[in-house]
Amino acid sequence: MINKIVLIGAGNLATHLTIALNKSSKKVVQIYSRTRKSAKELADKISCKYTNNILEIDRNSDLYIIAVSDKAIENLLKTKVMNDKFIVHTAGSVNMNIFKNYTNNYGVFYPLQTFSKKREVDFSEIPMCIEANNDNNLNLLKTLSSEISKDIRLINSEQRKQIHLSAVFACNFVNHMYSIAYDLLEKNDVNFDILKPLITETTNKIYNNNPHDLQTGPAIRNDKKVIKNHIELLSHSKKYKKLYSFVSKSIYKFANKLNK
Amino acid sequence: MINKIVLIGAGNLATHLTIALNKSSKKVVQIYSRTRKSAKELADKISCKYTNNILEIDRNSDLYIIAVSDKAIENLLKTKVMNDKFIVHTAGSVNMNIFKNYTNNYGVFYPLQTFSKKREVDFSEIPMCIEANNDNNLNLLKTLSSEISKDIRLINSEQRKQIHLSAVFACNFVNHMYSIAYDLLEKNDVNFDILKPLITETTNKIYNNNPHDLQTGPAIRNDKKVIKNHIELLSHSKKYKKLYSFVSKSIYKFANKLNK
Repeated sequence: MINKIVLIGAGNLATHLTIALNKSSKKVVQIYSRTRKSAKELADKISCKYTNNILEIDRNSDLYIIAVSDKAIENLLKTKVMNDKFIVHTAGSVNMNIFKNYTNNYGVFYPLQTFSKKREVDFSEIPMCIEANNDNNLNLLKTLSSEISKDIRLINSEQRKQIHLSAVFACNFVNHMYSIAYDLLEKNDVNFDILKPLITETTNKIYNNNPHDLQTGPAIRNDKKVIKNHIELLSHSKKYKKLYSFVSKSIYKFANKLNK
Repeated sequence: MINKIVLIGAGNLATHLTIALNKSSKKVVQIYSRTRKSAKELADKISCKYTNNILEIDRNSDLYIIAVSDKAIENLLKTKVMNDKFIVHTAGSVNMNIFKNYTNNYGVFYPLQTFSKKREVDFSEIPMCIEANNDNNLNLLKTLSSEISKDIRLINSEQRKQIHLSAVFACNFVNHMYSIAYDLLEKNDVNFDILKPLITETTNKIYNNNPHDLQTGPAIRNDKKVIKNHIELLSHSKKYKKLYSFVSKSIYKFANKLNK
């Protein structure tokens, strides 16, 4: 049974995860962060201990959740303070095997969502992608995740990498398209809110369909006149012009199964 | 006062618009479409007349709404059957001046939304972008639009072009990103629904913020290791690899105000 948890990290994900766990019957007993201020800030939210000295972390915890940047994980492991403990990380693109030289009990606890400090999130809807090095640990993680989410998925490291990559397309790249739309409208004194019903519909549509079947617009119709007009409208910005042409071609190639 | 309307076109937009207008006190009295079958299909939905012969359109209507492809508008005007009538089109990227050699009463009636035949839409939420050649006609269009939508916007032809272009980024390009995410997950036996909470959050976030301030992911952090790993994961597809690099660079340039 996992009852006591140490949270390594105090960023956006660590913060939301700590708060969600603390609402359940599982308790985060200590927060570690490189910076004392961040550690304290998060610890104060749930009234638990904190430290910025990795040597001072509680050695009697049932689970150590590492929620730091991908690059920082290995360095934390090298301190050996978590050796032989049950350790998980929360990263989309880091293989579970990163733990194998440090402990016999390990896994991954990856909530698939984008977290911002200021926005509350409903953890119960977030897909929890879990993986563990044996059945016992997997069961422990299943029980733990079901305390905070109703969407538990068994995902291996290879699949998780692909999910993380897909999330870059569906979240980061999508947000970039929104940014450009915002910028174009702002330059022409049009409020971005005019696009919101369209954006909502574009998103709602894919919930019951393969987005491939829903592609519309000048690129898929190969409507050269509209494409040319749009590129002219973008003449003030080389980078938008290039992006417009590039993505338009990609849409056309995708629809026509060209792989160049 | 506009009471009798002839609808020129029977595609997705024409269909949804006809149905919305017919629910109001304004009546579509006739549908024209190049193909008799499509004209009949739409006319049957609201029990009105129809024709596939442009010479047979009702000459006593108060308004002619042209809802056909951009390319087809001019050819319809050249038949001169609508000469001197009050004519509007519904196109994002066609200038209002297209009418000026044919009539003294004209305008634009552009509902900013993506329409699919099978999906119902709530017209009341759709921004109606209107423009007219004089105040009287503008008032007529204002009254007409307020019968079907609560979001009426006065938008000139230049702004409308920019809105249409922005919509390509925020709708067509976004859908392409979803298509690629879908494809990557499908190839790895992961159901696309795993991304839905993330997609919903990505969209909800921008409703109160400039998307530029919300950009996350490896590209904006310039996290070369993750970017390299992702590109490796895409080695099976040249086009995805190129798109990934291209959009990542664009995100970085956008954030750092580079214009190359």
